[in-house]
Amino acid sequence: MTRTNLRIDPDRLWATIMETAQFGGTPKGGVCRLALSEEDRQVRDWFVAAVRKAGLEVAIDDMGSIYATRPGRDPSRATIAFGSHLDTQPTGGKFDGILGVLAGLEVMRRLDDAGIETEAPLCLVNWTNEEGARFAPGMVASAVYAGVVNKQWALDRTDRDGIRFGDALRTIGYVGPETAGARRFGAMVELHIEQGPVLEAEGKTIGIVAGAKGAIWADCRVIGVDSHAGSTPMPMRRDALTAFAEFALAVEEIARNEGPDGVGTIGVAEAFPASRNTIPAEVRFTLDIRHPELDGLGRMDEAVTVAADRIAAARNVTFEIDRFWRKDPITFDPALGAEISRAAEELGFPARPITSGAAHDAVLTASVVPSAMIFVPCKDGISHNEAESATKDDCAAGADVLLRTVLALAG
Amino acid sequence: MTRTNLRIDPDRLWATIMETAQFGGTPKGGVCRLALSEEDRQVRDWFVAAVRKAGLEVAIDDMGSIYATRPGRDPSRATIAFGSHLDTQPTGGKFDGILGVLAGLEVMRRLDDAGIETEAPLCLVNWTNEEGARFAPGMVASAVYAGVVNKQWALDRTDRDGIRFGDALRTIGYVGPETAGARRFGAMVELHIEQGPVLEAEGKTIGIVAGAKGAIWADCRVIGVDSHAGSTPMPMRRDALTAFAEFALAVEEIARNEGPDGVGTIGVAEAFPASRNTIPAEVRFTLDIRHPELDGLGRMDEAVTVAADRIAAARNVTFEIDRFWRKDPITFDPALGAEISRAAEELGFPARPITSGAAHDAVLTASVVPSAMIFVPCKDGISHNEAESATKDDCAAGADVLLRTVLALAG
Repeated sequence: MTRTNLRIDPDRLWATIMETAQFGGTPKGGVCRLALSEEDRQVRDWFVAAVRKAGLEVAIDDMGSIYATRPGRDPSRATIAFGSHLDTQPTGGKFDGILGVLAGLEVMRRLDDAGIETEAPLCLVNWTNEEGARFAPGMVASAVYAGVVNKQWALDRTDRDGIRFGDALRTIGYVGPETAGARRFGAMVELHIEQGPVLEAEGKTIGIVAGAKGAIWADCRVIGVDSHAGSTPMPMRRDALTAFAEFALAVEEIARNEGPDGVGTIGVAEAFPASRNTIPAEVRFTLDIRHPELDGLGRMDEAVTVAADRIAAARNVTFEIDRFWRKDPITFDPALGAEISRAAEELGFPARPITSGAAHDAVLTASVVPSAMIFVPCKDGISHNEAESATKDDCAAGADVLLRTVLALAG
Repeated sequence: MTRTNLRIDPDRLWATIMETAQFGGTPKGGVCRLALSEEDRQVRDWFVAAVRKAGLEVAIDDMGSIYATRPGRDPSRATIAFGSHLDTQPTGGKFDGILGVLAGLEVMRRLDDAGIETEAPLCLVNWTNEEGARFAPGMVASAVYAGVVNKQWALDRTDRDGIRFGDALRTIGYVGPETAGARRFGAMVELHIEQGPVLEAEGKTIGIVAGAKGAIWADCRVIGVDSHAGSTPMPMRRDALTAFAEFALAVEEIARNEGPDGVGTIGVAEAFPASRNTIPAEVRFTLDIRHPELDGLGRMDEAVTVAADRIAAARNVTFEIDRFWRKDPITFDPALGAEISRAAEELGFPARPITSGAAHDAVLTASVVPSAMIFVPCKDGISHNEAESATKDDCAAGADVLLRTVLALAG
């Protein structure tokens, strides 16, 4: 077995995915494994046992992130890291995050099977609380690792029952002695399902993730005047709902003009006072705009303001747009992207560059470590859902690309 | 004092409105006097005492409606009735319904002051539960009177606490011996605030109500597919919310094309699953379309279906439109309208024909008794609101037109 024709074991990878899906498994075939829950403890214990069995050295940091290291021939070389997260959404699936960790385990196992040593050490990482479902925000451990979030603040976050993150971490026994962020890598590669429909629709197996979209989140209101639905002629109305409708279509148009990667979404919307025969005085809604380029995000943001102003003037209503959160786009390391691209090509997998619309741990590590991501298709682009699904072949393809990329990087 | 220059007493009318506003009066200057509540009992007791003091004969029917009769010189002539309702919305105003009853009382008092006898008997009516706020539906007593709603069904309606209409009516002591609908009138004239902005905007004092709009009420859903707001390109979305937005603007356009009397309103709307970074899979909303002509209502209804079908096809979503209630337009008695018009003209009040966008007791009685309505302006068209307001002058003008119309009809 040479490095060139080394392939992961698709059956073992698949069996591992199905095995861990039992920790928090739901009747509908999904997984509910909230960060720092009893189910999270179970999968962590399983994971630590599995990597120890694979001969890896386990370290845990003070955010609970788990590092499983395989020595290299040359300890002076920077460690090549890969991994993702094992926690899920409350009604999550079997693949989001999990694939990246278990494919990493499969890579480690396969290297052992084949008796392959790398020059650089390898490190498989399980980042704590990527989802942010129980403790907001998400990606908090990789954010602390990257130094973009204060550790004490992160440990003080509470869940709905008022339980502190730090206390919950202690309860499940995963407060480690290592200082989060103390260890630096030569690279961080994260394999993940796309969580979007593009690869599947285009028949591509591998997405070479060029970067992650920037995003602006806003809480918004449009305020008109409530009046009687039967007795107020159309031209005399100051209807908050029709103004909102015009705005929603304007956002859609703005995003289409920045396609295919610019997106704009109104996910939450509710009209008030919510009486069927009263013209709405107010619509409360959210706005989410994203773009892979800083300029593009700025153009969209500006166009949103222009649209709101135009509609407000034409309809004699008021828009309030509270942009409470903003994240700039990030670009992954181009050299890593080139390695992933080469690996996919050599393995004969149809691939395309893609931008990530969602944030991931690798998006956070990118600010301190050369980082990259590999996407594989998921059925109908569905994620954060018990129906989340990826094929065995696509999971194996992603793991093979990860393996080949890691070997290329680690030497 | 001749019949021709007889005018009501504006101060007495205003004082009466302000006096009764204490029964259920709210700190914000509104009235909360739900049908068959203790406050309703208080105002009914006050009303019965007032009409008895005015020498009227009181009768109560088995729906609790109160009839206060002034004899005519010719008992063989059909009674000329007028009135409205004393119940209010939970956060209602001082005028909706109340003006019609108290202006009727003022008419009776003024005729006594002036020593005027009419040929036909006169009857002032307080209809039970026009609002339908505590016991749905509204206008239930006038509907039973008109024979369009079954009495036992009406008595069996319950409020949120499970209390039966019939039992609540008994509790306040207003189950009368008369069979609702047994007494028929030669005419029924209802004075009411417009509950719309038209008269005020055009500087008119009197609206001669030609009829009431027909209406179709529907509960609707648009169903798309929820997907990730960051990773789903715009062209691949099946966004229920943007489809809803396009539909809302289509409804607005349809109504505008049937202006000024055709109206279309979406009063309730909510997107699901209501997550800021998930494209909505569903929007639930209500639809209310109204038109004063049967043909027009049909055209609007058809155009709504065409719009929904067009948007569904273009966006690959599904519309469900459950038209659960329909009311045909009604036309008030033209001869009565002519009398009201003549009265307004002779009194020198600027007047215009208008259609009622809301339903009223007179809309129900119209199916069995020649009926008509007089509108006066209300501030900003606001009603069903504690801020509901009408001027003393406009209230007096409406009462004067009522008085003159009643005299013309009763001889």
